[in-house]
Amino acid sequence: MNPTHLAGPVLVLGSGLLGASIGLGLRGRGVDVIVSDPSPSAQAVAVDIGAGRSFDPAEALAPELVVVAAPPDVTARVAADALRTYPDAVVVDIASVKVAVLEELRATLGADSPLLSRYVGTHPMAGRERSGPVAARSELFHSMPWVLCASEQSSKHAVKTAHSLAIDLDAVVFRFTPDEHDAAVALVSHLPQIMSSLVASRLQETPAHALSLAGNGLRDVTRIAASDPSLWVQILGANADKLLEIMQGVRADLDRLISTLSAPTAPGARLDLAQLIAEGNAGQTRIPGKHGGPAQSYAWLTVLVDDKPGQIAHLLTEIGHIGVNVEDLRLDHAAGEQVGMVELSVLPAKRTALVEELTNRGWKVIL
Amino acid sequence: MNPTHLAGPVLVLGSGLLGASIGLGLRGRGVDVIVSDPSPSAQAVAVDIGAGRSFDPAEALAPELVVVAAPPDVTARVAADALRTYPDAVVVDIASVKVAVLEELRATLGADSPLLSRYVGTHPMAGRERSGPVAARSELFHSMPWVLCASEQSSKHAVKTAHSLAIDLDAVVFRFTPDEHDAAVALVSHLPQIMSSLVASRLQETPAHALSLAGNGLRDVTRIAASDPSLWVQILGANADKLLEIMQGVRADLDRLISTLSAPTAPGARLDLAQLIAEGNAGQTRIPGKHGGPAQSYAWLTVLVDDKPGQIAHLLTEIGHIGVNVEDLRLDHAAGEQVGMVELSVLPAKRTALVEELTNRGWKVIL
Repeated sequence: MNPTHLAGPVLVLGSGLLGASIGLGLRGRGVDVIVSDPSPSAQAVAVDIGAGRSFDPAEALAPELVVVAAPPDVTARVAADALRTYPDAVVVDIASVKVAVLEELRATLGADSPLLSRYVGTHPMAGRERSGPVAARSELFHSMPWVLCASEQSSKHAVKTAHSLAIDLDAVVFRFTPDEHDAAVALVSHLPQIMSSLVASRLQETPAHALSLAGNGLRDVTRIAASDPSLWVQILGANADKLLEIMQGVRADLDRLISTLSAPTAPGARLDLAQLIAEGNAGQTRIPGKHGGPAQSYAWLTVLVDDKPGQIAHLLTEIGHIGVNVEDLRLDHAAGEQVGMVELSVLPAKRTALVEELTNRGWKVIL
Repeated sequence: MNPTHLAGPVLVLGSGLLGASIGLGLRGRGVDVIVSDPSPSAQAVAVDIGAGRSFDPAEALAPELVVVAAPPDVTARVAADALRTYPDAVVVDIASVKVAVLEELRATLGADSPLLSRYVGTHPMAGRERSGPVAARSELFHSMPWVLCASEQSSKHAVKTAHSLAIDLDAVVFRFTPDEHDAAVALVSHLPQIMSSLVASRLQETPAHALSLAGNGLRDVTRIAASDPSLWVQILGANADKLLEIMQGVRADLDRLISTLSAPTAPGARLDLAQLIAEGNAGQTRIPGKHGGPAQSYAWLTVLVDDKPGQIAHLLTEIGHIGVNVEDLRLDHAAGEQVGMVELSVLPAKRTALVEELTNRGWKVIL
């Protein structure tokens, strides 16, 4: 069954960043959205920014769809309530773990409850780094993955409605079982979060002069270590089984490394270290490239620019004139100087000509 | 003593990326540079690109400075030879570990050898991701940290000469003891490398559909996992003592996490998980900001652009017209669509007005 557009009304339970953004996006399509939040002020802000109208307990509401956008910890309880309260509504949640929510729902409603036919677990992968309705944007889900995790009990109608929600918000739909989803996010999202936090944690007592040598490697690895503890406690706790298996694998690798570092001149030590890095090479190349396509190596170059408004724009304008598409881009900053370095990736075949052209035009290509 | 410019001649032993870039940079200042490499073809390429003239064993050479740009494993041996062969030259090396090199030099020459007064260990922190003389650029060290690690035996003249080398190549000079240096790079460079490789290593057997959910978090954490095994074997092996201590701390944290994940509903489990993330927060905020200044939180916004040449330039030009300086910038790509997301950071006070201005000009600000 192909998804159609939602007709509404849609009830959004929870008016944080994701709930309010869903409301904004659907309202932009003319759908009647009602927002409800246990916090009156969060609900008021969501209404003020146009994410929907206020929930009124006195109104006889028969929503087409209820979106549970509550914190992960209370998601199953809120979803169970919604399935009971609105007997004709499809109910989806958007928590970032799926097995635990489904299990708690089954425990609450009964494993064979017919109510479960109207439930579909989903996970829109967007906007995790900021929070609150003030940051909400109608375009938040545009082109981002939205994973639908139907259970065996989900009806076709319920899956179609969940699909329509994702499509109406311009997301890209993936279909996983709840178990596949949790295994996937444990690896691609929860593992990097834990390892990033473990690295950053080591920096708590580091002398400041040592940190002055920090470069892009450290900044990249620790960027997500800035994440919100209260949210991540719920996510990691709810996906503990899947994570445990992965972290035991990491510990085995770490133990091997520690034993090698304890006797770095022993026979085989060099080979062990090389293998650690080589295995990392092998895994890293499997991460898909741009636009979800196959992994592709790009060629990088680094250009020096003055650190003032307009310089990067000027550089990119020139590259546009040269006719080369920039595949990826990042900024680095020079220690103690008002100079920036722009790292660009381009298709390998384009690199040599681009370096030559830029140099001719007076740019300092440093690598 | 203030550094002065090098007078030359300068002998560069090793014509890989760093050696050839040093030669290019000094030649650009009119210094007489001689390059020597055990690989005749690497030496020939370095000479061809203008990094110096060929080493001629028949020439009576009295260099002001010898730069040992050999692989870390052979650095001490090459430096010892140079100190013996050129009795008036200052000798510096550029290996990325410093204690092991100094210890091996002392073992080779005698701990109290007067030759050691002419030696200074240094570490220019640039250009580690590519290799070979073909990639060499005279600007490679521009504004990058160059750490001078004088020993108690290094003469003032030797330190001044090493300082002049860094300044002549437009680097930013830091002074650490060899021990401080190795402890610092173990934390800010070697630890992130290991953890990045450990994460990427887990992806070797992951089903492709799971990897299709990979986002910026995973990409950031695993970026340096693409590093060269043969170089890193030497670096990790030579800094094993310092690394061992850090990795044992990481293992203690990991053990605590594994025990928490094994009983995620036990009393205190939530607190343990929150603490892991909070400790990461605390360490992450200590990493210095742009230009080596104090850590500063910037405000981020994300703008949607078509993925074709000129779009990002156009966006940045408009931001320049609005008068806001972009502090940092990164590109993300949408799953399966020809749309890019540009994440920009700006001073927090500028964010609201910028979002409003961009929206008025028709840009889709999604967060």
